[in-house]
Amino acid sequence: MYFLTAAQYLDARGAKKYTFAIMGAQNRNAGGAPDEGVPHGGAQGAVEILDTTLRDGAQGAGVSFSVHDMLAVARALDELGVRWIEAGNPGGGAKDMEFFARTGELKLKHAEIAAFGSTRRKGAAAADDELLRNLLAAGTRTVVVFGKSWDLHVAEVLHASLDENLAMIGDTIEFLKKNGRIVIFDAEHFFDGYAANADYALSCVRAAAAAGAERIVLCDTNGGVFPDDAALAVKAALAAASGVPLGIHAHNDCGMAAATSILAVKAGCSHVQGTLLGFGERCGNAALSEIIPNIELKLRRPCVAGGKLEHLFSIARTVAEIANVSIPDTMPYIGAAAFSHKAGMHADGILKTSRSFEHIDPHAVGNSRRFLMSEIGGRSAIAERVKKIEPSITKDSPVTTALIARLKRLEAEGWQFEGADGSFEIMVRRELGKYRSLFTIAAYRVTSEHPAGGRDTALSSNYCHAWVKVQVDGKQEIAAAEGDGPVNALDGALRRALQRFYPQLEQARLTDYKVRVIDGKDATAAKVRVLIESTDSIQTWTTVGVSTDIIDASHIALVDAMEYKIIADIERRFKVYL
Amino acid sequence: MYFLTAAQYLDARGAKKYTFAIMGAQNRNAGGAPDEGVPHGGAQGAVEILDTTLRDGAQGAGVSFSVHDMLAVARALDELGVRWIEAGNPGGGAKDMEFFARTGELKLKHAEIAAFGSTRRKGAAAADDELLRNLLAAGTRTVVVFGKSWDLHVAEVLHASLDENLAMIGDTIEFLKKNGRIVIFDAEHFFDGYAANADYALSCVRAAAAAGAERIVLCDTNGGVFPDDAALAVKAALAAASGVPLGIHAHNDCGMAAATSILAVKAGCSHVQGTLLGFGERCGNAALSEIIPNIELKLRRPCVAGGKLEHLFSIARTVAEIANVSIPDTMPYIGAAAFSHKAGMHADGILKTSRSFEHIDPHAVGNSRRFLMSEIGGRSAIAERVKKIEPSITKDSPVTTALIARLKRLEAEGWQFEGADGSFEIMVRRELGKYRSLFTIAAYRVTSEHPAGGRDTALSSNYCHAWVKVQVDGKQEIAAAEGDGPVNALDGALRRALQRFYPQLEQARLTDYKVRVIDGKDATAAKVRVLIESTDSIQTWTTVGVSTDIIDASHIALVDAMEYKIIADIERRFKVYL
Repeated sequence: MYFLTAAQYLDARGAKKYTFAIMGAQNRNAGGAPDEGVPHGGAQGAVEILDTTLRDGAQGAGVSFSVHDMLAVARALDELGVRWIEAGNPGGGAKDMEFFARTGELKLKHAEIAAFGSTRRKGAAAADDELLRNLLAAGTRTVVVFGKSWDLHVAEVLHASLDENLAMIGDTIEFLKKNGRIVIFDAEHFFDGYAANADYALSCVRAAAAAGAERIVLCDTNGGVFPDDAALAVKAALAAASGVPLGIHAHNDCGMAAATSILAVKAGCSHVQGTLLGFGERCGNAALSEIIPNIELKLRRPCVAGGKLEHLFSIARTVAEIANVSIPDTMPYIGAAAFSHKAGMHADGILKTSRSFEHIDPHAVGNSRRFLMSEIGGRSAIAERVKKIEPSITKDSPVTTALIARLKRLEAEGWQFEGADGSFEIMVRRELGKYRSLFTIAAYRVTSEHPAGGRDTALSSNYCHAWVKVQVDGKQEIAAAEGDGPVNALDGALRRALQRFYPQLEQARLTDYKVRVIDGKDATAAKVRVLIESTDSIQTWTTVGVSTDIIDASHIALVDAMEYKIIADIERRFKVYL
Repeated sequence: MYFLTAAQYLDARGAKKYTFAIMGAQNRNAGGAPDEGVPHGGAQGAVEILDTTLRDGAQGAGVSFSVHDMLAVARALDELGVRWIEAGNPGGGAKDMEFFARTGELKLKHAEIAAFGSTRRKGAAAADDELLRNLLAAGTRTVVVFGKSWDLHVAEVLHASLDENLAMIGDTIEFLKKNGRIVIFDAEHFFDGYAANADYALSCVRAAAAAGAERIVLCDTNGGVFPDDAALAVKAALAAASGVPLGIHAHNDCGMAAATSILAVKAGCSHVQGTLLGFGERCGNAALSEIIPNIELKLRRPCVAGGKLEHLFSIARTVAEIANVSIPDTMPYIGAAAFSHKAGMHADGILKTSRSFEHIDPHAVGNSRRFLMSEIGGRSAIAERVKKIEPSITKDSPVTTALIARLKRLEAEGWQFEGADGSFEIMVRRELGKYRSLFTIAAYRVTSEHPAGGRDTALSSNYCHAWVKVQVDGKQEIAAAEGDGPVNALDGALRRALQRFYPQLEQARLTDYKVRVIDGKDATAAKVRVLIESTDSIQTWTTVGVSTDIIDASHIALVDAMEYKIIADIERRFKVYL
């Protein structure tokens, strides 16, 4: 319905002016998405989303992405179907450039990568500006540049004249457009600027429009504006922008970033910038996980790829996992408790008529209703997962009851199976009585020592080794390995010992390893939860282990990972069900 | 300035009608606050606050208060100077009744306790209603009763006629007023009701006003309304309320509870309900810690006791401690990161003119500015932090340049100093040439084995032990320890070895331990970053270690933690600078 081709989009907007810029950019391979299937802001009421998790989000305290992480986040955001994924910083380092160089690997379906930079420096020609040359070197079809729109900043931070700042905006945009780029202009501090000197803030918008910017984004950089005041400023900017679509970029310093974004959309913005989980400096950027459902479900305007809103809950978790943070249970729409009900009265009401006590259907965003005092929610969800392994199971099967009891006990001890499909399947097999032991670990020992005794290395003075003794059908095998860390050594030794019996383990390798301290207050004696992701050429599976000892927790997850691989391999090869 | 006596307040409102109810209530001792010094809603633009942490807040997942906790929360809220503290539930249990009985102990200075209940049951006289008798038995001067205002709920949940519901509202309020109570009427689901059947929702407001309610509170019970729509509904309700002050009660299901509250105040509400930290069912109630500063600092209307806004940061922490939750770092106004700055560009701007990049002065709410160390953190931010250690340093000092180079190199290797003040300080001391080595670790060995060799335990089949050899002023000491995990064992052995030389280490203990895998793609050979938080009776410090070996990374952070403690202790004791 809201999937328009670029041509339809341009027809709908009636804005031929932008045809060249959007259709004619040179750099289609550098992260450019096909125009087919991309929802465009402004057309038929659609609102386009620019996610800046990789740029503004990375400014958040405790948020840090490797290039591998950045690519994984981009993949998740593309899956959701945002229009642009912004990355990079003015004069950004080697990490950003490596990311841009590798975006081709992503084969994006919906989104396009946009590089971020600033307007040219004061008193220099745009063509001579090193930062702008870096921005072009990113090789993206779209670039985002920010410029000042608050007179205070022009005077006290830039030390430039008001006219010079207008020239900086205009020159920069013209230069980038001459180089074939789609240009999104971020008017930094627009709302503070509008409050201080509305004429000047609007003349910055006019300068950007005149220079040919494709989008002009009104930024509440300090996060201090109220939503109703923002809406009034948006209306004034609409006139100044002479038809160029406007965007909103809000920060949450007043706790109102979502409201400011929504009221700006209602006032005429058709482009929204934010970060999926609200990551960002200080109190964070506007959380797109709040804004997207508000737009799609409440304003009834499309903004992500069709049908993808239902994946919001799981895509949000994917991004949280990559960033190694937990999504707060109370987070609107996507929190685990967002549709939970504790009060007996309400839970009763829900059963009578769900519209009574829920503002939306939780399934619309992939979430589900939970009753905290009862297991009604849990039971169905567990039966649903068990069914995938054994189709005859229902929520009333005795095995479901037994599994719930076991899960409750394990979760109280710190286990979590939501992200650990491999371990969950092995547990279900055990409960179904369909589990056959493939090996046992008779003993292991892992040693980490400093300095390295017999090892000659200038780089590391640390040394780990492990030995493992396994038993398979009465036969024993012992193997040893050294490694970069104790878990790496243990993994090596275990794999070597088992390969005598199960050579298929050679195809499997670990692709991710995560550690979370479950109860920080006891410090180094706290429990740790280890999640291990493994892959072979066919599939990927995750396993979990919990212990006060990180090596023991890793050992539990490693054993599950190898068992899962062996079982899957035998079942696939021999078409049997073990 | 905004501290009025009750008489002044009533004069200001010109509403003699309420004189008896407010002045003549019998139950002055049951949690009643003196009228002197209480800011009242509506007068001279003041906005009154009702905190429902103890009632609606206690519906939140994971929130649970003992009577002792409830009294402590009430004390903290009174200190802040909210107008009412709501507690209890319809037919509330023994815990609520004990709380009401003990509120006399509190000697409240500003706030008044209000008991919460519902309108009478369908088809019964108010005087015969057990729940209303319980409500009176709470013995509070003020009571809050909720009633339906959404026709859907009247029909499908109450199964009553629309007229019967109006009678339930009127009867209940009249009965409570006859019993000398100040009555606050919560119009449940008002905004959904207004959207579905505006006439009926407004007639519920009229019924409450006619029966003599002192406040009529418009509730967004499901949290689904948008702030601008709420503001329109408030304006309609103002006319229906014939002069009775209106309140707003918002939930955060759209991420907009703060905005809805503020726009409702701008539209005419002079009473705001919420919970200090946003506790509440599902996504929580409106967070008063966001709303109060927005009202006082942005709308310039008083709402808590004079001068107390500056205590918001610490009072919020008191309530969080009682509830045993952490305040998210990104929480508006009161989060630890709410005024932190990471981007070099911004940090530079802040030092030039703080108004440029901060929407309020952090000290206004008792918070403070922080500069985070990071790969994108600038020279000014680093100089600012170094200054705390050596005041003569500026951003142009050579040592700043050297530190930046060192930080960049370390951050590229996965280190992060933004949360690790202890390690940062030790690094700065090294760079300043003011570092003196206190000990060296000659060697260590950590072993994790399974099953436990000589250890007799049914619970754990895992066993960790460590030995460490340290050198201090040419003397060596070796010590060993066992532990719940390898790091716990290493910590124990290191501490034991060093205490011979530095007995003050006995006062220090580890309070938090965090692990993050830096680059997951290499799985168990990836680097890990360990953060360790330590404390003694005087201060808390955090240190960091990075390595491919988690034990080595922990060892680095442990060494910094102990060095920091020894240095701080000697400097404090001997008033020297080492």
